[in-house]
Amino acid sequence: MSARFRLDALAERFALELRGDPAQEITGVATLACAEPHQLGFLANPSYRKQLTESRAGAVVLGAGDAEGYEGNALISRNPYADFARVAALFEQRSPARPGIHPTASVDVEARVDPGAEIGPQVSIGARSRIAAGVRIGPGCVIGEDCEIGEGCELVARVTLVARVRLGVRVLVHPGVVLGADGFGLAFDDGHWLKVPQLGGVRIGDDCEIGANTCIDRGALDDTVLEEDVRLDNLIQVGHNVHIGAHTAIAGCTAIAGSTRIGRYCLIAGGVGIAGHLNIGDRVRINAMALVSRSLEGPGEYASGTPIQTARAWRRSAARFRQLDQLARAISKQNKDLPDD
Amino acid sequence: MSARFRLDALAERFALELRGDPAQEITGVATLACAEPHQLGFLANPSYRKQLTESRAGAVVLGAGDAEGYEGNALISRNPYADFARVAALFEQRSPARPGIHPTASVDVEARVDPGAEIGPQVSIGARSRIAAGVRIGPGCVIGEDCEIGEGCELVARVTLVARVRLGVRVLVHPGVVLGADGFGLAFDDGHWLKVPQLGGVRIGDDCEIGANTCIDRGALDDTVLEEDVRLDNLIQVGHNVHIGAHTAIAGCTAIAGSTRIGRYCLIAGGVGIAGHLNIGDRVRINAMALVSRSLEGPGEYASGTPIQTARAWRRSAARFRQLDQLARAISKQNKDLPDD
Amino acid sequence: MSARFRLDALAERFALELRGDPAQEITGVATLACAEPHQLGFLANPSYRKQLTESRAGAVVLGAGDAEGYEGNALISRNPYADFARVAALFEQRSPARPGIHPTASVDVEARVDPGAEIGPQVSIGARSRIAAGVRIGPGCVIGEDCEIGEGCELVARVTLVARVRLGVRVLVHPGVVLGADGFGLAFDDGHWLKVPQLGGVRIGDDCEIGANTCIDRGALDDTVLEEDVRLDNLIQVGHNVHIGAHTAIAGCTAIAGSTRIGRYCLIAGGVGIAGHLNIGDRVRINAMALVSRSLEGPGEYASGTPIQTARAWRRSAARFRQLDQLARAISKQNKDLPDD
Repeated sequence: MSARFRLDALAERFALELRGDPAQEITGVATLACAEPHQLGFLANPSYRKQLTESRAGAVVLGAGDAEGYEGNALISRNPYADFARVAALFEQRSPARPGIHPTASVDVEARVDPGAEIGPQVSIGARSRIAAGVRIGPGCVIGEDCEIGEGCELVARVTLVARVRLGVRVLVHPGVVLGADGFGLAFDDGHWLKVPQLGGVRIGDDCEIGANTCIDRGALDDTVLEEDVRLDNLIQVGHNVHIGAHTAIAGCTAIAGSTRIGRYCLIAGGVGIAGHLNIGDRVRINAMALVSRSLEGPGEYASGTPIQTARAWRRSAARFRQLDQLARAISKQNKDLPDD
Repeated sequence: MSARFRLDALAERFALELRGDPAQEITGVATLACAEPHQLGFLANPSYRKQLTESRAGAVVLGAGDAEGYEGNALISRNPYADFARVAALFEQRSPARPGIHPTASVDVEARVDPGAEIGPQVSIGARSRIAAGVRIGPGCVIGEDCEIGEGCELVARVTLVARVRLGVRVLVHPGVVLGADGFGLAFDDGHWLKVPQLGGVRIGDDCEIGANTCIDRGALDDTVLEEDVRLDNLIQVGHNVHIGAHTAIAGCTAIAGSTRIGRYCLIAGGVGIAGHLNIGDRVRINAMALVSRSLEGPGEYASGTPIQTARAWRRSAARFRQLDQLARAISKQNKDLPDD
Repeated sequence: MSARFRLDALAERFALELRGDPAQEITGVATLACAEPHQLGFLANPSYRKQLTESRAGAVVLGAGDAEGYEGNALISRNPYADFARVAALFEQRSPARPGIHPTASVDVEARVDPGAEIGPQVSIGARSRIAAGVRIGPGCVIGEDCEIGEGCELVARVTLVARVRLGVRVLVHPGVVLGADGFGLAFDDGHWLKVPQLGGVRIGDDCEIGANTCIDRGALDDTVLEEDVRLDNLIQVGHNVHIGAHTAIAGCTAIAGSTRIGRYCLIAGGVGIAGHLNIGDRVRINAMALVSRSLEGPGEYASGTPIQTARAWRRSAARFRQLDQLARAISKQNKDLPDD
């Protein structure tokens, strides 16, 4: 990290209030616990507040409230995490783009690759696919037929776009992702399964990010859709014909079954399961590992499951869970106010 | 989609009763909501029945009951979803097979590839593996040593067969799948883990389909087995020495631990966890995100978990779950009919 | 399997007590149920004890207690599973290493590959990465920039190391694994998401094993760390800045959110979800599909969820779960000993 900035330069660049030494040099970013005297730390999560006084950071990005009584150099922010992210981006090392097609790549004669795109080693691009300027396609990616990749997209490595997948601009796709595999469409017929052809595609809006090994199936007839600025973590399953609204973020290992619609600005935690053909409203929050088996109105926060216990205590609770109806009937016999079923 | 059929031709081809205009031209398939006047729709799920009257579809595949009172063109079916799937297959676009080995592929001298097989770009095939006629191996697939791939199989792209994996005929494997990785076999010994060699293979029956990024481990000693017509969705984990019976279908993100046997014609929903060394009978249905910690008799339908609630209501239920045994004891003190433990 | 050993040779090699015919020849290993007369079986799990008398195995590795009354040839062990693993390793077939770089691989001029390393077909290695002697990198792997791979590591196939990933010695990584993808770091700002740069790396200790399609994200600022001898099964998600202590083993489909610390010698079952910023002590066991939403002290065994039931019985229990607080209040009205909230 050879970048280096004066604290007053950072304050001016990001319109932050500076307290302390304007000439303090910042050569990198770090957590409060690990920061060296020339690094910038941040405080956004109150559970790390006690680290503030002991931190060796050369300066800290933090809110006005947390800054009270702090004697070190500070950049005061109304959104410390976001402003820290902006500063951190100055220190990100990215190898420069190398436009052109690597000699080990295999590009169909009917594909159209902009000369400003970078096509890495071992990449394969199928017929009629179009790659815009400023796109980076990393090693081992497979782009099938009839795909479109908009300006500034990055496919980090070993990403697969099976067919008829369209990415907007500035979409970031992490390794192992599979976009446009067949949806899980089966008709039971005469004692065996009949595959239902999956004829739709996948459309991903601008500024989406898709985590490693996540899968988004192509639609059966219409497309599977992510609107703009949707953020998916790793190992997520998105079934065919799902529609996810703009600015929704979903954590790892969550699964969404086919034809469900999810609203805008939702926050869905990890390990959640959402059944098919449901409607989830705008600004719905779903807690970790919840099972969503009915439509949910937004805004609202939802949960299911049971709290973690010692296994010994849990075994007793779990045994009683099986008796719950019987217990409830016994109570209601003695108490006329309670529901009887 | 340049295919085009008269409605009477479709009725005859699939032995369906036609009501309406025999000369109606069909140029594609669509959902009721999106169908254009020359497209064929279908009605199989009653929750979409209200879309029937408003649909612009040129014709609809539906059951005799749903057809009563419907005035549009109709193909009457006893299994509308299956018959729709058959019609839809007529409109599926598939690029023609290109038999031969792509120049960027790497094929071991001891491998045997039928001249009628298509081996795509960046594919690697190991020693003693055999690829039958009509097989398509898409870009970036890795076939290790001692594998067999039967006639008509398709490995879409970036599929890995580690070693000693045998596929029957017409098996369809989606991108990112890993077949035959080592099972998770560990012996604890003297303060550290000792790896237990995984010496078995994987056998996949005819007509199976395996979804994107799903993993099926090789057996420790015997093989891991899928019988014919098993259908696996995406991101499923199948542990070593699992045996899955014919015609069983499993939805995404389900995990099956080692040595468990699953019967025939089971329907296992998404996000289910099944412990190791269990027996699941024929025609067992398991609901989404259930945890199966004991063997289950078939036929039958099983579930676990708690229903989705608002987070506020859930916190109260969850707190009480921890007190359940105490509550139950209080009730049983007052009620001699109830179990005391 | 052409290896072949006399029973007394095996007994001597692994310091086991021999009962029976020292000259018995062993040509392979098998389960008790499938063993042929020249194969060695083992008994470690008591639920397979009844198979002992019917087994055709030429000899069996088992504990002294289980050996009582057994009349076949036996190797007596204090840890039968571990000793069986050692014997089985003698029968493992591994193709010999082929040091050198495959002609279809793409190696950056600034990368350093030891001449004793094997670099397979379609591999890509980025700038400043270093590959030690005895390393095997299988087909289709992508090694990004600034990675280090220690002696004796094996990347089976199609593994991705995005950037700044360091593996100790003898690390085994299965296909589809993604190490060092960006963590899921987002700041919400002015109605849309802002990506928080992920500047850290991943450090994997000696003798770790990482299962197929598992993902370990790079740290946001510091590294994500696995200490030595950590064993991860397939399809696991490890978030950024997670720290996993030595000798911990984790089964498939478990997810660990960012910045959580897990102790040494933990056993975490499959499908578990662990929230972020928690501390899990040493020697903690967590049962399958538990949701861990608070820190856990070790040693201890923990669980959550409800037991599997028929769907009919479950629906009744689940409906009552939603009424639990109401039921509990009714009971406590009648019983002063119970908690009131």
